[in-house]
Amino acid sequence: EEMTPEQQFEIGKQKALVCITCHGADGISATETYPNLQGQKQQYLVAALKAYKQNQRVDGLAILMQGYAKDLSDQDMKDLAYYFSNVKTDTTHQSQ
Amino acid sequence: EEMTPEQQFEIGKQKALVCITCHGADGISATETYPNLQGQKQQYLVAALKAYKQNQRVDGLAILMQGYAKDLSDQDMKDLAYYFSNVKTDTTHQSQ
Repeated sequence: EEMTPEQQFEIGKQKALVCITCHGADGISATETYPNLQGQKQQYLVAALKAYKQNQRVDGLAILMQGYAKDLSDQDMKDLAYYFSNVKTDTTHQSQ
Repeated sequence: EEMTPEQQFEIGKQKALVCITCHGADGISATETYPNLQGQKQQYLVAALKAYKQNQRVDGLAILMQGYAKDLSDQDMKDLAYYFSNVKTDTTHQSQ
């Protein structure tokens, strides 16, 4: 049966655990050279992950990303894209 | 003398006229496969433009971007990055 958005988001969130060190749990990265992913277009995120996986992005930082992307399945990419495209910055208990 | 942020933003805005067809005047693109640029990290935007200019991004859509990036100077890239990193969606007169 069809998954709810919440279930879909949760799946992406689990898969994103390895990504958030650089890209931030809410997709806002803490490093100037790492892109924010929050609210990014889902199809673009999938296309970018595919480009890293297929070594079609080969500039300095891309090499690092290739390592992360090479083992991702198409479904992984969709789940990650869904998560980062929909994640919000949780301002209720903003960490000091 | 030092430029004001407003002057810096205006310079980037002029240079971005060719970009906004795909990426949106406020950096929110209307096409699922074109990335949003609003609020993106400046250094990342410069690094991405350099990668396109140096043909270090060669996936399908990248080819299109190479054409736009190939004539950009380093200063152009910084000005464009400043603009898109700082542009906001103007909600005062939101187009219907």
